[in-house]
Amino acid sequence: MILQAIRKKQPLVHSITNYVVANFQANGLLAIGASPVMADELHEVEEMVSIASALLINIGTLNERTKESMLLAGKKANTMGIPVILDPVGAGATAFRKKTVQHLLAQVKFNLIRCNVGELAAIANVRWQQKGVDSGNGSIAITDEAKKIAQQYNCIVIVTGEKDFITDGVQSQWIAGGHHQMTEITGTGCLLSAICGAALVVGNDPFTQLADTLMTYKKIAENAKMSTKYIGDFQITVLNELHRLSQEGEK
Amino acid sequence: MILQAIRKKQPLVHSITNYVVANFQANGLLAIGASPVMADELHEVEEMVSIASALLINIGTLNERTKESMLLAGKKANTMGIPVILDPVGAGATAFRKKTVQHLLAQVKFNLIRCNVGELAAIANVRWQQKGVDSGNGSIAITDEAKKIAQQYNCIVIVTGEKDFITDGVQSQWIAGGHHQMTEITGTGCLLSAICGAALVVGNDPFTQLADTLMTYKKIAENAKMSTKYIGDFQITVLNELHRLSQEGEK
Amino acid sequence: MILQAIRKKQPLVHSITNYVVANFQANGLLAIGASPVMADELHEVEEMVSIASALLINIGTLNERTKESMLLAGKKANTMGIPVILDPVGAGATAFRKKTVQHLLAQVKFNLIRCNVGELAAIANVRWQQKGVDSGNGSIAITDEAKKIAQQYNCIVIVTGEKDFITDGVQSQWIAGGHHQMTEITGTGCLLSAICGAALVVGNDPFTQLADTLMTYKKIAENAKMSTKYIGDFQITVLNELHRLSQEGEK
Repeated sequence: MILQAIRKKQPLVHSITNYVVANFQANGLLAIGASPVMADELHEVEEMVSIASALLINIGTLNERTKESMLLAGKKANTMGIPVILDPVGAGATAFRKKTVQHLLAQVKFNLIRCNVGELAAIANVRWQQKGVDSGNGSIAITDEAKKIAQQYNCIVIVTGEKDFITDGVQSQWIAGGHHQMTEITGTGCLLSAICGAALVVGNDPFTQLADTLMTYKKIAENAKMSTKYIGDFQITVLNELHRLSQEGEK
Repeated sequence: MILQAIRKKQPLVHSITNYVVANFQANGLLAIGASPVMADELHEVEEMVSIASALLINIGTLNERTKESMLLAGKKANTMGIPVILDPVGAGATAFRKKTVQHLLAQVKFNLIRCNVGELAAIANVRWQQKGVDSGNGSIAITDEAKKIAQQYNCIVIVTGEKDFITDGVQSQWIAGGHHQMTEITGTGCLLSAICGAALVVGNDPFTQLADTLMTYKKIAENAKMSTKYIGDFQITVLNELHRLSQEGEK
Repeated sequence: MILQAIRKKQPLVHSITNYVVANFQANGLLAIGASPVMADELHEVEEMVSIASALLINIGTLNERTKESMLLAGKKANTMGIPVILDPVGAGATAFRKKTVQHLLAQVKFNLIRCNVGELAAIANVRWQQKGVDSGNGSIAITDEAKKIAQQYNCIVIVTGEKDFITDGVQSQWIAGGHHQMTEITGTGCLLSAICGAALVVGNDPFTQLADTLMTYKKIAENAKMSTKYIGDFQITVLNELHRLSQEGEK
């Protein structure tokens, strides 16, 4: 089971991430036995990457300064050969985000893009009305566009939503389940991207490792919803479930 | 009921806010069905504002960079005609904060200033000993000074405390209730300002919408206190109550 | 009891800290009746320090900008004569952190360095493999090195871990107890440093005040573990226990 494998290996995941969800993301990684580190200063990101097992780049509250850190960290991760994950938060909301994502995709080799449908549309240049960092509204052929992006950037693409879609450009899979309440607390997508970073470290079959991660995350949402009603308790229970499943597995 | 109206409309609230409470504020907005977005980069705030329903400017951890973003975002929001809310966190604690607040008030038309009594004193130039971002000690005629500020800046002023005071310079109201434990977790005032931003979007009677919001928030404090004892549980229960009331209303 | 003394005095602790744990740290200080303020802008840190009872410098997500703020705030705190605490998060992980810590130690008189063993090794120039911001692996004589650092910088040194070690260079003490789950949520070390800042304000025997704080924190970990199983609940219960003990004391 993927979370148990992560707990066994205890990978260090360097996250250049946003300040809205940094705490939740750190606790979520710790819950499954991974180690988070969140350095974003230009003068140290390369050195921090050099001791990490995976790098997550999340543009949720990016600025001119951290944009440069992301670029430098990504390039260093490529020379190290460790997995690099892109979470293009709100990529379609502003030109600054869209350009940054394009620049990152041009300069850094990513192993995984983990996005929502609005962010996919932005990367695929499909007309779309993104609602801030939420997915928003529009019309897009998810499977076709995600596959195209996966082929173009030679990476895995995960588009999360009511059903998650995962593709490496050749094989693809839809994953159902979960609960919509996951979209009603901040940072569940960001945390999933971080966990995917940890998941990419444990094994030699990235597609299966990530598909397992998605299924596990759906299960966690269902479990959390079964034992809670409102989102205060729900967010805490998501952390509990990550902790529990990574220790005990699903029973 | 105001929270139910917010849930129905699902406004996007762009918050330029502090990193101490960003997560709590995002989850609090999500709890009532609003969408938070927290971009603060100069190169994108105008574009982010242009898709938002309301803008919150919170100076809790401001710096030279974000100060400029706040100014630009505020001006853009004015041209868009969307509600702009100022949360002058710790305005009386340093000259830098006080000057920033004065500059913002001179350059941006705010619909609402939501502050504590120490921050009111700073804006009103009344001698006061502010304790960091807490209200601190001093002597001030809240009703007079708040009305004066409301008239001067043609906006609503809310001064929260043991009793809340709301005025638009003409009509005024004191709102009692609540529980002092709200001041013993970080971010409840900041979150209230964000919720006021969402509340200003739903209706055509800002004073009533905001007075309703204050009464509801007092009720939430009372409910949370009834079912919990210590602040760890209390903060989670505040989120639960926001979620519950926005779905079910008060029973 | 130290937490009750803090609640009685309600010290304002100015924390220049990282955005990962800022919320948890603020709520932890509030839980014991202290007041947190988290300003990090160069133009205001001196003025904020001038109204504070203690200053905490935590380098968890430092950057070139905040590095300067830390230096300025530290120097100001020295002229004020208030306690200054250094939390050298991940000091051994990058040259940037190590140099910043050396620079701070050279320019600012600290009353306390609160670190883990990997950070101690970095300050003591002992070869060590730090794992991001976690302690990592290596071989070090904690008592000797901590005493040496305490003498060199004329301060108290606390090295937390399975057992905590505290020394002022003359007297020393090992403190057992606690629960390893404290290392499985983010920010417990950072929060401890902040609480130590508050503890240094209440009394005239810093060594005893800090040793009491460490014992109380160990007790809190044990209590939290007794009533919870997984880390979501655990982190909330740590806040509850801080709140409870500072009001009621240990029963």
